[in-house]
Amino acid sequence: MRREILYRKIAKIIEDQILSETLRIGDKLPSIRSIQQIYGVSLNTAIQAFAELESKSLVESRPKSGYFVSKTSQRKLALPSVSKLISPEKGKNSEDLISSVFDILRDKSIRQFSLGIPDNKLLPIAKLNKGIIKAMRQLEGSGMDFEPAQGSTSLRRNIAKWSLIFDGSLTEDDIVTTTGTTNAIYQCLLATTQPGDTIATESPVYFGILQLAKSMGLHVIELPTHPLTGIEIDALKKVIHKIDVCCFTANFNNPLGSLVPDENKKEVVKLLTHHNIPLIDDDLFGNLFFSGTRPKPFKVFDEAGIVMWCGGVSKTVAPGYRVGWIAPGQFKDKIIRQKLVQTVTLPSLFQEVIADFMEHGGYDHHLRTLRHTLHTNCLKFQQAIEDYFPENTKISQPQGGFFLWLELDKRLDTAELYQTALSQKLSFAPGSMFSQNSNFNNCMRLNFALPWDDSLENDIKRLGSIVKQAL
Amino acid sequence: MRREILYRKIAKIIEDQILSETLRIGDKLPSIRSIQQIYGVSLNTAIQAFAELESKSLVESRPKSGYFVSKTSQRKLALPSVSKLISPEKGKNSEDLISSVFDILRDKSIRQFSLGIPDNKLLPIAKLNKGIIKAMRQLEGSGMDFEPAQGSTSLRRNIAKWSLIFDGSLTEDDIVTTTGTTNAIYQCLLATTQPGDTIATESPVYFGILQLAKSMGLHVIELPTHPLTGIEIDALKKVIHKIDVCCFTANFNNPLGSLVPDENKKEVVKLLTHHNIPLIDDDLFGNLFFSGTRPKPFKVFDEAGIVMWCGGVSKTVAPGYRVGWIAPGQFKDKIIRQKLVQTVTLPSLFQEVIADFMEHGGYDHHLRTLRHTLHTNCLKFQQAIEDYFPENTKISQPQGGFFLWLELDKRLDTAELYQTALSQKLSFAPGSMFSQNSNFNNCMRLNFALPWDDSLENDIKRLGSIVKQAL
Repeated sequence: MRREILYRKIAKIIEDQILSETLRIGDKLPSIRSIQQIYGVSLNTAIQAFAELESKSLVESRPKSGYFVSKTSQRKLALPSVSKLISPEKGKNSEDLISSVFDILRDKSIRQFSLGIPDNKLLPIAKLNKGIIKAMRQLEGSGMDFEPAQGSTSLRRNIAKWSLIFDGSLTEDDIVTTTGTTNAIYQCLLATTQPGDTIATESPVYFGILQLAKSMGLHVIELPTHPLTGIEIDALKKVIHKIDVCCFTANFNNPLGSLVPDENKKEVVKLLTHHNIPLIDDDLFGNLFFSGTRPKPFKVFDEAGIVMWCGGVSKTVAPGYRVGWIAPGQFKDKIIRQKLVQTVTLPSLFQEVIADFMEHGGYDHHLRTLRHTLHTNCLKFQQAIEDYFPENTKISQPQGGFFLWLELDKRLDTAELYQTALSQKLSFAPGSMFSQNSNFNNCMRLNFALPWDDSLENDIKRLGSIVKQAL
Repeated sequence: MRREILYRKIAKIIEDQILSETLRIGDKLPSIRSIQQIYGVSLNTAIQAFAELESKSLVESRPKSGYFVSKTSQRKLALPSVSKLISPEKGKNSEDLISSVFDILRDKSIRQFSLGIPDNKLLPIAKLNKGIIKAMRQLEGSGMDFEPAQGSTSLRRNIAKWSLIFDGSLTEDDIVTTTGTTNAIYQCLLATTQPGDTIATESPVYFGILQLAKSMGLHVIELPTHPLTGIEIDALKKVIHKIDVCCFTANFNNPLGSLVPDENKKEVVKLLTHHNIPLIDDDLFGNLFFSGTRPKPFKVFDEAGIVMWCGGVSKTVAPGYRVGWIAPGQFKDKIIRQKLVQTVTLPSLFQEVIADFMEHGGYDHHLRTLRHTLHTNCLKFQQAIEDYFPENTKISQPQGGFFLWLELDKRLDTAELYQTALSQKLSFAPGSMFSQNSNFNNCMRLNFALPWDDSLENDIKRLGSIVKQAL
């Protein structure tokens, strides 16, 4: 009885500190050992105190790091709305906007909230450079030889080994390497569609998929997508007879950061298998989970070989290496042949560097560090947006990856705001890039894989002011 | 008068040595200075002696290297026949054969006469490795950053500068980089064709073009092609109304090594401009000329922007880097967009290494050395084939590049010979790979970009024996 009172008392003290913002989002709590010492209590009491806080979603545990003030503890801003099933708008063209955002990416004088990759400072560049020198020495002909059409054997073996962490059972023979993950998706679409076919995606959806579809003469059905749990299966069922191929991101959709629950993944694969519809399983962000274990891709639930699992290191380790891959199931032979006729082979050096990085432990360590940084940054960004953006701003609650999705006042057009922001050396990705219709014209995507410091916080503040002024 | 007699006397002595095969194909002649000393004659007399020999095609000069016994001086074997305009054979499938040849390329126990690239020993690997380390240090983020969609600025600038040597007037803005030259051709075909369209090529033609066409649903008309002067313009005129795009190699067609004369290049571009038919100008081998100056690509004669000039370093410097490029004329914007949606961007590191290699002189020096080696090897291979192959073997007379094309007795099928050769650790590219019909089933392509030594000569001898035994 006394123990019950004690742990509640301790939990209440911490709760008050959180609600008064003495402890703020992302702050680390004292360790269980410290709590024992400070309050002179047993291990069990300290653990129960944290369990109490966790049950109220005030704190969250991170493996091997301890407890942190959760992002929902002081949440004021609402989630963005679930998108609706809307037909594409005729004549809508985001290409110029996309090109403009891409073209200024190399301008170091601009704050690149629009970046689609982590800032260089978060990447293991020195280690990779050592890896290049090592690979040059070890590779036959310093990587000048043509590798097998399917891609570097050692890279494929290491990808297969890594698939164990999400209960995958891939072998090196199941995998084909590609020029980054975008090219993986291109190869999958090319292998499974004809011009005039229809693909289904999330909405909002990564603009690269929309551009690919357009360039290949494909129609796109954007499915309603929940900011937390991803595509809505009922909506998928409604349009299933119109669909030739699906392209979904189960784990941390770009831009929403949504995570499809395992049972939904299973149901989607079952449904698509029944209708014999191939599924492109874009798992580029899967290793960037903020808590728990590595989420499963759709591929884990695939028995018929209809799922083409696509991955790569562009979002985690080495964007400039363009190392991606596919486990293409029943489409493997066709995809290898496509790769062979389109490019003969890919540079082997970078594939070897990544294989070595995976095999000798650098990969795992780097991912853990990066996830921790991204999670903390996410909480700090959310807090800053609460502080500096208008009160009616809606904000996503990503469970991994490094994008925030903001839904602003309906009257705002972020493509216009983009021009204003750019004149003040701030860049973001306007919402209209992420859809074929005008659903998201008042939205923006922000990259939070940037090193946090005062100037970054100030730039979020400046962006918030631009939004406020526009109202 | 005395001088006239003297130089003729000297020329006659050398001529006799050549005809008696004391001096053999490819042998270097004494220098002009040596001739002066040996015969106690003036500089002019020595020069006139060589001019006499050159006018009889007995010797040939190579810039900065001196005089060599020419390949035609002792020629015994005939040229291969000019191909005929024949419809593709239904059901013919060379893909398994091509895959088999590709799959064994990495087997170091096999003599790779089938190789499509120079042997590593002929490549400047140590210099390039130094270049990689330099580029890692100099590039922002060690090459981790995304480069412009059009490709590395410094590489494009250097390609443009190099175009001066063939009277090109390209600027860096005219050029788009690609994943090797095969991908350049793929991008050109994708930008200019629809499934069901028809392209025209040489015959025999590089099998990669046939595979690309097949994978893209394109028909191919193989035009009659002369082993010395390339595609026959009259044949092109006959079928011009059926053609949507042309894909020609003016300079050292793979596999024939033919060189289209400048006046023919001009006429082809004029004809295609008149009919508004785009021309893919595959100039991958253009820098590997054996004598004279760098031959012009079709692009030089292009006023309307219909020519897409394609190049790369896979055949000269760094096959494994997959660095290629296009000057796509009026199709530039479309091709940049394709590249962006298919791969976002390419690895910048290798492009920087090649740019630096071009800019700081290594490229020029390497090309001169490589051309010299290839020319000498060509003459030695031709001699060995004369010595060891059946007398009715016909053999191409490439003016650049590194392939020989052999036409064997009509009764022979080189796809069958390939299996026999492979069992004896010899590989070559069977003729049927290079056409949609059976025209070349008795042909083979040999790569002579291999370091010459006794074991190589012996392997040519062994291959000759296999051919003789099959008869």
